[in-house]
Amino acid sequence: MQSITKGLLQLPAKFPNKKILSIDIGGNLAKTAFYIPKSDPQFQDHKSFEILTKDTIPKLSNGEMIYLKSFPSTKIHEFIKFAKQHKLIDKDSQHIHATGGGAYKYNDLFEEEFGQMGVQLKKHDEMESLVNGMSFILNYGKEPAFKYIQGEGKKYLPRESTTQFPKLLISIGSGVSIIKVNNFNSFERVSGTMIGGGTLLGLANLLTGINDFDTILEMSKRGDNNNVDMLVRDIYGDKSPFKDLKGDLLASSFAKVAFDNEFDGNLRFDDISGKYKKEDILNSLVFMISFNIGQLAYMTGQLHQVDQMYFIGNYVRGHDLAMERINFAVEFMSQQKTQAQFLTYDGYLGAIGAFMKEFENDTN
Amino acid sequence: MQSITKGLLQLPAKFPNKKILSIDIGGNLAKTAFYIPKSDPQFQDHKSFEILTKDTIPKLSNGEMIYLKSFPSTKIHEFIKFAKQHKLIDKDSQHIHATGGGAYKYNDLFEEEFGQMGVQLKKHDEMESLVNGMSFILNYGKEPAFKYIQGEGKKYLPRESTTQFPKLLISIGSGVSIIKVNNFNSFERVSGTMIGGGTLLGLANLLTGINDFDTILEMSKRGDNNNVDMLVRDIYGDKSPFKDLKGDLLASSFAKVAFDNEFDGNLRFDDISGKYKKEDILNSLVFMISFNIGQLAYMTGQLHQVDQMYFIGNYVRGHDLAMERINFAVEFMSQQKTQAQFLTYDGYLGAIGAFMKEFENDTN
Repeated sequence: MQSITKGLLQLPAKFPNKKILSIDIGGNLAKTAFYIPKSDPQFQDHKSFEILTKDTIPKLSNGEMIYLKSFPSTKIHEFIKFAKQHKLIDKDSQHIHATGGGAYKYNDLFEEEFGQMGVQLKKHDEMESLVNGMSFILNYGKEPAFKYIQGEGKKYLPRESTTQFPKLLISIGSGVSIIKVNNFNSFERVSGTMIGGGTLLGLANLLTGINDFDTILEMSKRGDNNNVDMLVRDIYGDKSPFKDLKGDLLASSFAKVAFDNEFDGNLRFDDISGKYKKEDILNSLVFMISFNIGQLAYMTGQLHQVDQMYFIGNYVRGHDLAMERINFAVEFMSQQKTQAQFLTYDGYLGAIGAFMKEFENDTN
Repeated sequence: MQSITKGLLQLPAKFPNKKILSIDIGGNLAKTAFYIPKSDPQFQDHKSFEILTKDTIPKLSNGEMIYLKSFPSTKIHEFIKFAKQHKLIDKDSQHIHATGGGAYKYNDLFEEEFGQMGVQLKKHDEMESLVNGMSFILNYGKEPAFKYIQGEGKKYLPRESTTQFPKLLISIGSGVSIIKVNNFNSFERVSGTMIGGGTLLGLANLLTGINDFDTILEMSKRGDNNNVDMLVRDIYGDKSPFKDLKGDLLASSFAKVAFDNEFDGNLRFDDISGKYKKEDILNSLVFMISFNIGQLAYMTGQLHQVDQMYFIGNYVRGHDLAMERINFAVEFMSQQKTQAQFLTYDGYLGAIGAFMKEFENDTN
């Protein structure tokens, strides 16, 4: 673990007069970040880029603009077509900065497509890119982070004038990695859990036949976990022997169906739905998994003296209930002293971190 | 939170010359602890008690003997019949020491049965009884605690000559309570999780139609979680970017079934079984829940500077796989520095703690 500040994240007063392109090829989505100098003829196209890239970061503190766009990883050819069509590779371009597992998987394809132009795919460490992307966004992005408070929704936080360390980055993919970020380029995975997004999808699939993430999150919002979970009240009545356990708190996920004898191994999903609504089952799953992630993250933060916790990944991105429940856990565990934070440009951290490597090369 | 030593757990040189009886009436089982002086005619019966009470503590350090026996809570009449038949209530008995939720539920019944004899049900705090029972057993029970090491099985630990504090007591019921024990009579619930025994039963019931705890644990032993879980290797190949994550570690519970499209909502349990064996599903559930409990307990211990962790409850009692997996988590999290501990007389802690109240009355 190092704590050398490489100055990587210092935004240049003006971006260099050449195009910059990066791509983070993940399991599901390929995310790209690109820059076109205002002097470039291609920049005339910027209105169309702005329409194309809904997730653009329009206002960096130096007035420059990075465009962000995503493609399905299986349709990497669309990205290549897009890059060529909009001339995102310059005659001065030496590299496409790349990260994510797909950077290796598609290396030969990129070689084939861009090799003749003298442009190489330059691979960067995935975790380092993620961490640098987060730090960059917090410093230079507009409304870079937010909290999600129950009943209040999103509450945006200002950009940081200097990056505050340490931070926890909780990356929720199939499983969950809890990364302690000590400084630029200095980070380590300090904890994690196997109960993550893959668990939600897998169990939802087996229990309800639904394996589409957005559908699961949408249906879970309409559910009521009280129909399948056991609350503190169900065990202790209103006189819990533990002062911190109020009656309406969850005592045991899925415990209300524990002793139901009607499940004899010949039941259909439809029968389960008749008795236990899919919405309720999914609501319980989201509650269980989200609380557990928030709890583990908070405890990890306590162990490493870190207060700031940023939760990222498909599991939370755009999913109100998941964010709300994770925040509930962090607030509950911290006795309202700390809240969960989320990132506006979640999803593009790796691409942005790889993009910023362009400046590391320039300054080193 | 107090740390007054009441001397409660000091074993008298010789038990008083009268019978002592206690009962802990839980949701499923009623557990009783009783003592009969050797001078009592009823003691002639002791061989039959020993046969009746397989879980007896035969060798307290003062040579005395406490018998332990359990009944289904729904058959509390059997206990009353047993107590009368074997004359477990003495003419000198003033109290039946009682704890557990059922002590309130069955108060009138006991009043009816024993009130005429002048014997009252004396109710004791459930948590205090549990904590005192644990401390007592560790001091005076034969081979009171053990570790459960994968491949090696149980490894018994010697009795403690003086009780070492602090300890963590992790009580796994439907949900899980993590209790920090500072001293006799001084304890507090410092953490917990809703992912407990009720979650195993509830999800097992919905997923496989099996809701019998012993069957679930038995079947899970024959399963292979690799068929439903995603391992680190499945995500990163053999080159994980995290030094502490080896390929064979679990990355995401149930993630292998996440994107299976055959679950269209019209599937039968039998179809699931054909594709995903019930044994594998149950194995994955036990792995997931056990690791999570072990991890939370270890982290809680770290936060409170407690090394000794005792896991109790139906979830672990007599269940090798559950104990092994919890220990795996504690060993993994502590980098082999700490191990999970279990109690030989698990299940009887509350009854023994209530029993010991007899001596508190005598000495105060």
